[in-house]
Amino acid sequence: MIKKSIDTSAPLHQLIADRYSGVSFDPDRPVSLDALRALAEAARWAPSCFGDEPWRFLICSKQHDPAGWQKAYDALMPGNQSWCLHVPVLVLVCTDTLFKHNGNPNPFGPYDTGAAAVSLCLQATALGLMTHQMGGFSGDKARELFSIPEQFKTLAMMAVGYQLPEDKLPESLKGRELAPRKRKPLAEQFFLGAWGKGMV
Amino acid sequence: MIKKSIDTSAPLHQLIADRYSGVSFDPDRPVSLDALRALAEAARWAPSCFGDEPWRFLICSKQHDPAGWQKAYDALMPGNQSWCLHVPVLVLVCTDTLFKHNGNPNPFGPYDTGAAAVSLCLQATALGLMTHQMGGFSGDKARELFSIPEQFKTLAMMAVGYQLPEDKLPESLKGRELAPRKRKPLAEQFFLGAWGKGMV
Repeated sequence: MIKKSIDTSAPLHQLIADRYSGVSFDPDRPVSLDALRALAEAARWAPSCFGDEPWRFLICSKQHDPAGWQKAYDALMPGNQSWCLHVPVLVLVCTDTLFKHNGNPNPFGPYDTGAAAVSLCLQATALGLMTHQMGGFSGDKARELFSIPEQFKTLAMMAVGYQLPEDKLPESLKGRELAPRKRKPLAEQFFLGAWGKGMV
Repeated sequence: MIKKSIDTSAPLHQLIADRYSGVSFDPDRPVSLDALRALAEAARWAPSCFGDEPWRFLICSKQHDPAGWQKAYDALMPGNQSWCLHVPVLVLVCTDTLFKHNGNPNPFGPYDTGAAAVSLCLQATALGLMTHQMGGFSGDKARELFSIPEQFKTLAMMAVGYQLPEDKLPESLKGRELAPRKRKPLAEQFFLGAWGKGMV
């Protein structure tokens, strides 16, 4: 992936520093089943409340199952469909709404599944792959197309693939792909000992 | 940290493979402010919907602010208080329930915050630190003790510190600390192209 610098007040592990959500995917480089398995394993080993592993990942690879991929694509909002046309793999991320051990509602499902999803993204970074998660999709449409049981909640759609080389970026995506990475100041969201007492 | 082997069908990045939630924290090794800053930065650079960065991390270090640490400890359930007595840092993880750009409810808050939290845990692993997230705490008590505004939802409490050396593990925690790591089979939670079609 194209390297981007980040402003950080402490040295970060390279894997965490290097991950970002690009939009220019290479249509000519499919993702192997071995790579998909490594991504899934990274999510599988994430932590979860009561070890429930509430996540479900529906991995739709254009190369391995074009019909499945098309359903995932059809569930995207038009704004995301435009740049996702060449994405080789779309992943629908869901969570179980109920605990396995007692059938009660699991309030930690989205939190734990977010952890599993970003673990997948970081493993992707390690393999030279790019990821981009989206809230812009229709959960209802995805549920209908994939016959997802009501017990499961759809949370996000994720694009996975290789980034286009810098000299092949289309003009329409260049600005977005090369934009500097930004975050709010540390002190706004990280507090030390008291609510609102920002870290410096 | 004590190394534990995991069963995985594909090679995982070491950082992801090495993280696990132990319970035996070393009371004599505090966590420096530099290390805490690196943990916060890892969370800060996590992805979020609309780049909202909905998370708030309230970092309570016994060394740097004993009174703040005590509040976090007091919000834990008794079962967690027993093994958290020697944890040098407790982190209360919260999310904003509203989007910054329009004030509407943000349904992605817990999902994005779970990603930020596990990024913090992975950076901790990189620094030789151990983390353990808990659902077993009182959000109401934490809100009261820290005067957390209603707009923010409490999601998890996290223990951070160094693991005790293996020859110093107390008998009462040895079994839990050395237990093998386990996950459900890959095919139960990871599907390829169709709901329920497990990956192999």
